Amino acid sequence: MEATLGIEGGATKTTWVVLDAEGRVQATGRIGPGNVSLLREEELRALLAAIRTETGGQFHSIGAAFAGCHLAAQRERIAGLLRVFWPSAKRVVVAEDAHSAFAGAFGSGEGIVVIAGTGSNVRGYREGRWARAGGWGHILGDPGSAYDLAHIALQRVYDAFDATEGLVPLGESFLERTGQKDLEELFVYIHSDPSKDRIAALAPCVLESAAAGDRFAVDVVLSRCGLLADQVKCVAEKLRFDRPKVALVGGLFEHSEAYALLFEEQVRSRLAVSTVFVSRVPGAVGAARLADEAAEEHPGVEPKPSRILLRESATSLDGALTEERNPRSRFLDRKSVPELVELFLAEERLVEEALRERKEEIAAADRKSSYAVFCLKKK
Amino acid sequence: MEATLGIEGGATKTTWVVLDAEGRVQATGRIGPGNVSLLREEELRALLAAIRTETGGQFHSIGAAFAGCHLAAQRERIAGLLRVFWPSAKRVVVAEDAHSAFAGAFGSGEGIVVIAGTGSNVRGYREGRWARAGGWGHILGDPGSAYDLAHIALQRVYDAFDATEGLVPLGESFLERTGQKDLEELFVYIHSDPSKDRIAALAPCVLESAAAGDRFAVDVVLSRCGLLADQVKCVAEKLRFDRPKVALVGGLFEHSEAYALLFEEQVRSRLAVSTVFVSRVPGAVGAARLADEAAEEHPGVEPKPSRILLRESATSLDGALTEERNPRSRFLDRKSVPELVELFLAEERLVEEALRERKEEIAAADRKSSYAVFCLKKK
Repeated sequence: MEATLGIEGGATKTTWVVLDAEGRVQATGRIGPGNVSLLREEELRALLAAIRTETGGQFHSIGAAFAGCHLAAQRERIAGLLRVFWPSAKRVVVAEDAHSAFAGAFGSGEGIVVIAGTGSNVRGYREGRWARAGGWGHILGDPGSAYDLAHIALQRVYDAFDATEGLVPLGESFLERTGQKDLEELFVYIHSDPSKDRIAALAPCVLESAAAGDRFAVDVVLSRCGLLADQVKCVAEKLRFDRPKVALVGGLFEHSEAYALLFEEQVRSRLAVSTVFVSRVPGAVGAARLADEAAEEHPGVEPKPSRILLRESATSLDGALTEERNPRSRFLDRKSVPELVELFLAEERLVEEALRERKEEIAAADRKSSYAVFCLKKK
Repeated sequence: MEATLGIEGGATKTTWVVLDAEGRVQATGRIGPGNVSLLREEELRALLAAIRTETGGQFHSIGAAFAGCHLAAQRERIAGLLRVFWPSAKRVVVAEDAHSAFAGAFGSGEGIVVIAGTGSNVRGYREGRWARAGGWGHILGDPGSAYDLAHIALQRVYDAFDATEGLVPLGESFLERTGQKDLEELFVYIHSDPSKDRIAALAPCVLESAAAGDRFAVDVVLSRCGLLADQVKCVAEKLRFDRPKVALVGGLFEHSEAYALLFEEQVRSRLAVSTVFVSRVPGAVGAARLADEAAEEHPGVEPKPSRILLRESATSLDGALTEERNPRSRFLDRKSVPELVELFLAEERLVEEALRERKEEIAAADRKSSYAVFCLKKK
């Protein structure tokens, strides 16, 4: 058996995937939250026991990536637990979810991955070295994340109210979304539960307003994703990158073309890049890739990128940065995680053909994105 | 009986004071937390019942100011409760704590009060009109507050680490204060309980570093208290103030001369003011003043400033903005709330004499504060 188990634990769900020796998907599934900073020991055990029940115990390699998994001691503890449930595994690699996102986007290649979901994070890899910027969570950083966009936009709505006693349109959008009457009520609403998720849930208001050309919202998005682009520059400089590939991962990029466009523009205004693309490879697949090429077998090893599955990551070039999505990418958006995995990994030939067909479109993405940003700015 | 009961409820404690018809302190006390946004109905009842037991039920007026008391509906509900416990009171005024701070600093006078403790807030009153800026809480605003200073300083320490892989001295100070080994551990520490108070508790690191001349910390303080000074300007413009008096209230101003100096400088660079002074009148006394001159008797009335106790607020000119405190102000710092109340209100003659004695010193405060800020910047 040369099968690999990939697990990715996030704030709201944990997904897993079983790959055969050729990297083909054998099974997938999902289960409850997997942010290891928030889970108690017995909850983590229960999570792993449930996956063990579904997948069985025979794996050559296990790659597991978790949100909140920052300290080496944490990684070692989790690797130890994985060995309890899968004692015959030859390789066990535990990492942060940023590493699985990187492996999903680049396989064994070099590049910079930018994650923007509820939080944000930037990681680069070149010539055997990793570099990071950000990823410090919603209190300490995470510029350009859903939390950050909504948070700063809220602050500016209140600032504008203080200055003018008036409500900007984005403020109206916040009131509508939360069902509050005025900014006083919204104030009470926010402070009654100022949780990360509740605030992050208001990011779509900001992005939709920006996409509709609202100058106030565009300014918020530009300033905050500009800070995230600063982090890309910072990582590129640390690694002395010449025109890196930049992969965009996470809900903000996947669900808002306006955001991806504005962000790409900010990146390109700061450094020369060879390409900027949205990666849609599921995190659990990225996690499986981590284990695939781990040089050493001890728990907590700093993972090296995987080679086996490199060819699939090219699918992430799928036109998210072009102005209009092609029908296939719309189709992908509505698929479940297992369906996505099937599509990306089992139907390799289709993917290759699709890419070949759309070469011109991809090449044109630059011009189109600049145009779209121009349109947004004009309004 | 023309006695007045003053109550001020804050995040960590509630204080009360009983004043006789001449505004002299008859009794004082303190009890548990009184942020009405965080208290359940029965907790608020228990709080009032305890005060009722201590003070008895015979008051002509009751002035009660609470943190988190933003909505008219809240104020009416609380006024209703007060009438349950003190049914014979002729006047019941409920307000936000910002109003009691104003009444404490200015009595019936005009001016702008700036509050900077765990949170921040700016309120002005002129010719029968109130204006506000800020006070939207730690998520939506509160620039220049303890939470904000520590929060932004933390973010900048992590930004500096991302850029240089190095720890700035202020970062070392944070690690020492929290007992963490490095920024990864501090990250876990912060996110394991990212509460307002825990982060605000790191503000002294920032202020002490700034006072010691650390450029990084000075920059954080200047930028954040600059935003608070913007709010002062905003309120001054709303009220068309010509050279307003500006009163500084709260722990940051009282405990950090460096902060008061830097803030004063930011205010003076933005608008012409007649004076900037630290007010140390206890909040419960301010609350009592609110009731004193309330024009109408129905609950929830927007309070007017009080006249009776105006003369005491002059004590707040006490030299906090001069470079060296005089012995009497040091003495005040170590006194308990009841002792402070006694000193401020019962010993009126002493206060008048002290002010007369120190006229020259107060007049010199401007020059001295500018000099001290210059020294800080030079380092």
